[in-house]
Amino acid sequence: MFEILAGDLLGRIGRLKVGSRRAETPLFLPVINPVTQSISARWMEENLGAEAVITNAYIIFKRLGERAIEEGVHKMLDFDGIVMTDSGGYQVLEYGDVEASPEEIALFEEEIGTDIAVPLDVPTGVCGRERAEETVEKTLKNLERTLNALRERGVRRALWAAPIQGGTHLDLLQRCAEQERGMGFDLYALGSPTPLMEGYRFEKLFEMIYVVRRIIGFGRPLHLFGAGHPMIFPFIVALGVDMFDSASYYLYARDERYITSAGTLRIDRIDYFPCSCPVCSDITPDELRGLEREERIRLIAAHNLYACFREIREIKQAIRDGRLMELLEMRARSHPRLYQAFRWIMENEELLKLMEDNTPLSSRRGINLFDELSLRRPRIRRARRRLMERYFKQPGHEKHLVLLPFNRGMSFEKLKTIVGEEVFEVARYGTPYGLIPDQLRYTYPFSQTNYPRKLIEEVSDDLVELMVEQIRAGGYERIHIVGSRSRYLRDLASKLHEALHKLGICSNLIDWN
Amino acid sequence: MFEILAGDLLGRIGRLKVGSRRAETPLFLPVINPVTQSISARWMEENLGAEAVITNAYIIFKRLGERAIEEGVHKMLDFDGIVMTDSGGYQVLEYGDVEASPEEIALFEEEIGTDIAVPLDVPTGVCGRERAEETVEKTLKNLERTLNALRERGVRRALWAAPIQGGTHLDLLQRCAEQERGMGFDLYALGSPTPLMEGYRFEKLFEMIYVVRRIIGFGRPLHLFGAGHPMIFPFIVALGVDMFDSASYYLYARDERYITSAGTLRIDRIDYFPCSCPVCSDITPDELRGLEREERIRLIAAHNLYACFREIREIKQAIRDGRLMELLEMRARSHPRLYQAFRWIMENEELLKLMEDNTPLSSRRGINLFDELSLRRPRIRRARRRLMERYFKQPGHEKHLVLLPFNRGMSFEKLKTIVGEEVFEVARYGTPYGLIPDQLRYTYPFSQTNYPRKLIEEVSDDLVELMVEQIRAGGYERIHIVGSRSRYLRDLASKLHEALHKLGICSNLIDWN
Repeated sequence: MFEILAGDLLGRIGRLKVGSRRAETPLFLPVINPVTQSISARWMEENLGAEAVITNAYIIFKRLGERAIEEGVHKMLDFDGIVMTDSGGYQVLEYGDVEASPEEIALFEEEIGTDIAVPLDVPTGVCGRERAEETVEKTLKNLERTLNALRERGVRRALWAAPIQGGTHLDLLQRCAEQERGMGFDLYALGSPTPLMEGYRFEKLFEMIYVVRRIIGFGRPLHLFGAGHPMIFPFIVALGVDMFDSASYYLYARDERYITSAGTLRIDRIDYFPCSCPVCSDITPDELRGLEREERIRLIAAHNLYACFREIREIKQAIRDGRLMELLEMRARSHPRLYQAFRWIMENEELLKLMEDNTPLSSRRGINLFDELSLRRPRIRRARRRLMERYFKQPGHEKHLVLLPFNRGMSFEKLKTIVGEEVFEVARYGTPYGLIPDQLRYTYPFSQTNYPRKLIEEVSDDLVELMVEQIRAGGYERIHIVGSRSRYLRDLASKLHEALHKLGICSNLIDWN
Repeated sequence: MFEILAGDLLGRIGRLKVGSRRAETPLFLPVINPVTQSISARWMEENLGAEAVITNAYIIFKRLGERAIEEGVHKMLDFDGIVMTDSGGYQVLEYGDVEASPEEIALFEEEIGTDIAVPLDVPTGVCGRERAEETVEKTLKNLERTLNALRERGVRRALWAAPIQGGTHLDLLQRCAEQERGMGFDLYALGSPTPLMEGYRFEKLFEMIYVVRRIIGFGRPLHLFGAGHPMIFPFIVALGVDMFDSASYYLYARDERYITSAGTLRIDRIDYFPCSCPVCSDITPDELRGLEREERIRLIAAHNLYACFREIREIKQAIRDGRLMELLEMRARSHPRLYQAFRWIMENEELLKLMEDNTPLSSRRGINLFDELSLRRPRIRRARRRLMERYFKQPGHEKHLVLLPFNRGMSFEKLKTIVGEEVFEVARYGTPYGLIPDQLRYTYPFSQTNYPRKLIEEVSDDLVELMVEQIRAGGYERIHIVGSRSRYLRDLASKLHEALHKLGICSNLIDWN
């Protein structure tokens, strides 16, 4: 029912199957209001290639119950992709209570042919601890009742998602996820981060996702409720979210707000559309402002959807190319609070280690490094560790080590003259990996790493430290450092030479010529 | 003929008029091959809103001369926007020479009704010094001959662009621009950077633009020949380029390469189109690969054009919003070599100063800061300098200065108790501007600046230094620093307290409560 096809960091591309229907993750499910269908599911399927939508089982139950049972939810929505139904939990959050039992809602969801069903939960939202505890207890009780009802009636065609509540109280979230792990749900759904997103509290949201992902493991899909803005899509995917829904394309449109991957613009302040979608290619901002409000909202909502689906495709391509981290570094600059939250990711050693373990060993495209932060990427950390463990720490190194600038060629004859011996090893300096043994320099990732000269200059102290460690691990007795014509490499060579000298390791700095 | 409507950094939005035709800058002119018109000028006008195109006067002269004279270039191209004609200089670069004199080409350009004409020049390309000097001399001679011919015949309907040659030899470039300044051309056109872009030598390209812009001043438009990739558009605009042309949308398409704002993708390696343009919204990568080559190239070229025009609109919006630097910081992460070139901009004091002078004092949207580099932005530098000069260095400050955390309110009564006096000034600390006087905190840019907490932590030493300078400039005698509940602000307060203490300035650190 869920198969993982490719991965990068904690993000993955997966294939989700429900009966004969299928969709690819990361999957964005637009919220469809079953009553108004402001933008229809069919339109989304035809124009955006939407493979799934989400709608509200409780609203259907109250207002369209008979028709839904008769026709089934797919026919009613005129959509043949995957339909997920939220249970009405959101109505609990907004209006305090719903007029239906967990059993009623659960059986109704099965009856109307939902593909992915959510039990009636009690969302935590953002609230005090006592209230949060209550919502977790009530949610867990509802889940038991739901599973019992399904078992009793002997129906379970849909995939069932376990809503994880607890909100910003991480220990409650953890407890909720732990309890649900053994209950036999098909996937998990993290509840109610919308207020966090509206308040730009991305760091807290990321922490919540991370806590949950660690507990539920990596086998099953994780859904995030109400992940409203494409700005955060790459981040939540990189943290392991596989699916998410949102109504913001429409809610923002109603507020005359225009969504981009880097933020939100007010329609009355747009002079030029920074977008090439069919809507924006066909109309100018002035023309849009001149339309009737209803038509204007419909067009903004359509653009907002194009923006969301575009971002999903960019994320998927980045996963396939092993460049999800590059995308995060770029998107982190959408807002200072998002940047702050990105820094939280990049300073969380445990999380980085987990990302390292889940990132493939090679990738189709090269690695682009920019600043110090880029060096904390899982791929770089792993490459450095592997160099150390699988090369330098291995026994049997030669006594002599010649260090050449990474960009210089030199004949064996000339090297022999320099060393004054027949037997030596050669490694390259001036790279973000410290020293790269000559025989590995044309392998991944060393040969496919691009970086600015500036970076080497800025982290030269760290690089010297790393190179010294590598040299000590290799047990070399005599180091021959060949200089360079480039000043920054010459400076690096001198620093290394001095550091070795201080440690009593015999080193010899040789002029370029 | 050229009117500047808005500006940010050295970039501007301008209105270019030729006769009754007009276009807005920054202006991207797609190259139209007059013979094949692979994608027609009319299609570009209708689908992209193209206001101008460029074509080749020499090719028209040789192959379509009579028809062009009879119909005029607009009718021949079936395009009613601005038509710029390159002179054939490119053919000189490629094939060594052209079979036409500067006079012939010049009069032909006028005769076919070109709106923007270029004299027959001798492009430098990337070559040795001697050859470069020769190209500059020949170009200057050709310009004289062109102007003489136009004067003699008494025709000059078109705007005439002076091609600036010299290539990577900055002193030659400078000399060429200086000579041309007095010749009476309507605009300038910097020659032949294509090999630099193909070699990712962005730093050199940026230097060339900067050298030229300084010499020609800011009154007239600057065109850049062959600026091929949207990745560099924001940078060249920020350095003062108003117009640029390129054929790469088509050349890349012919190589099955797909352009994005962040780079180039090979069609055979795309799984998902990271774009929402009408082409990419209508077809999947697999479907595209399945088409006949000719149709496939046409569609890739159309997408590439959508990508270029989208980037232009994003740049214009950024200029209007005063956020061009934010766009650069984001786009600098498209490639390490571009990042390196961006760092060159951010470390060029003279250039930054020039940007400062040309950036408006306020802007419609707030300022988003991310890392240390963001603090080098012209807007930030200027705000800091103005604070110093117009506030702290002004005479008449009180003796007592109370420093509050930027995010804390405190009643006058409480402040009085702390100071033990009736008369004192209040300023805020914990901001990227150092100290902000209380009465200025709700003014631009102070109230509209967003930054991550992390930034304040990372530059705390610099901030302490800045605050000390501000305090000394104000001549305050006694500083009362009120602590904070946040640790990073408490740390900053302690550091400031210590620094003042060391300098013998009387300071008093007051606990939060």
